[in-house]
Amino acid sequence: MNLTHIEHIGIAVENMENAIAYYENILGLKCYKIEEVADQKVKTAFFQIGQTKIELLESTSPDGPVAKFIEKKGPGIHHIAFASTGLQECLDDIAEKGVSLIDKQPRKGAEGLNIAFLHPKSTLGVLTEICEHPQN
Amino acid sequence: MNLTHIEHIGIAVENMENAIAYYENILGLKCYKIEEVADQKVKTAFFQIGQTKIELLESTSPDGPVAKFIEKKGPGIHHIAFASTGLQECLDDIAEKGVSLIDKQPRKGAEGLNIAFLHPKSTLGVLTEICEHPQN
Repeated sequence: MNLTHIEHIGIAVENMENAIAYYENILGLKCYKIEEVADQKVKTAFFQIGQTKIELLESTSPDGPVAKFIEKKGPGIHHIAFASTGLQECLDDIAEKGVSLIDKQPRKGAEGLNIAFLHPKSTLGVLTEICEHPQN
Repeated sequence: MNLTHIEHIGIAVENMENAIAYYENILGLKCYKIEEVADQKVKTAFFQIGQTKIELLESTSPDGPVAKFIEKKGPGIHHIAFASTGLQECLDDIAEKGVSLIDKQPRKGAEGLNIAFLHPKSTLGVLTEICEHPQN
């Protein structure tokens, strides 16, 4: 298990335009990319701060996971993503220790990263993603 | 406004002992400090990962803010804290732009940091802390 830093923090928003305005005009960050991730039914917007990205998530469908999250808990922090080296080994190690995985093998996420989600029932309520850059 | 990195991510937990075991044994992080913050009615535990700390929060009282958060939303990610240089200036700048502040002046938080919280009604549902090291 080799987690190196917080790769990003995912934040569920109701209105992407308002949210980008808040992070740019109030917090002084700069949106450097907007990207749709079709299989997650979200539009994403990225801001870099130090080692970490803020990833805003707006649902593109009322039945998408981010829409359901907002319906249940309201807009706010949705997940944290740890950067790793050796993602498949991390997943195998975690599964062996009894953690439920949403993704048993890495899949492609935003920004071309290899990603996998752990199940929040095994992570004390924190939706947790582990990711790695493809070159690792 | 000068935010430099994510100083920490606060996570509300129901049982500190179980939570520390999860972060140490499953995610491979190392708890380097446990500290009680009496005025917030919480016990905290810290883990460093890259530039960022994970701050676990267990309520020491059923009427504390972390207990109320868990009652309403369940255990999970509670807040994000940005590191800044020039905290008072940041707060003045944000207030001028119409953001509600929980703390208009910095106060002392865990680890001796100067901290202030913004009001989540002004931050799209994300409980947001800004902090600085006292030497800044």
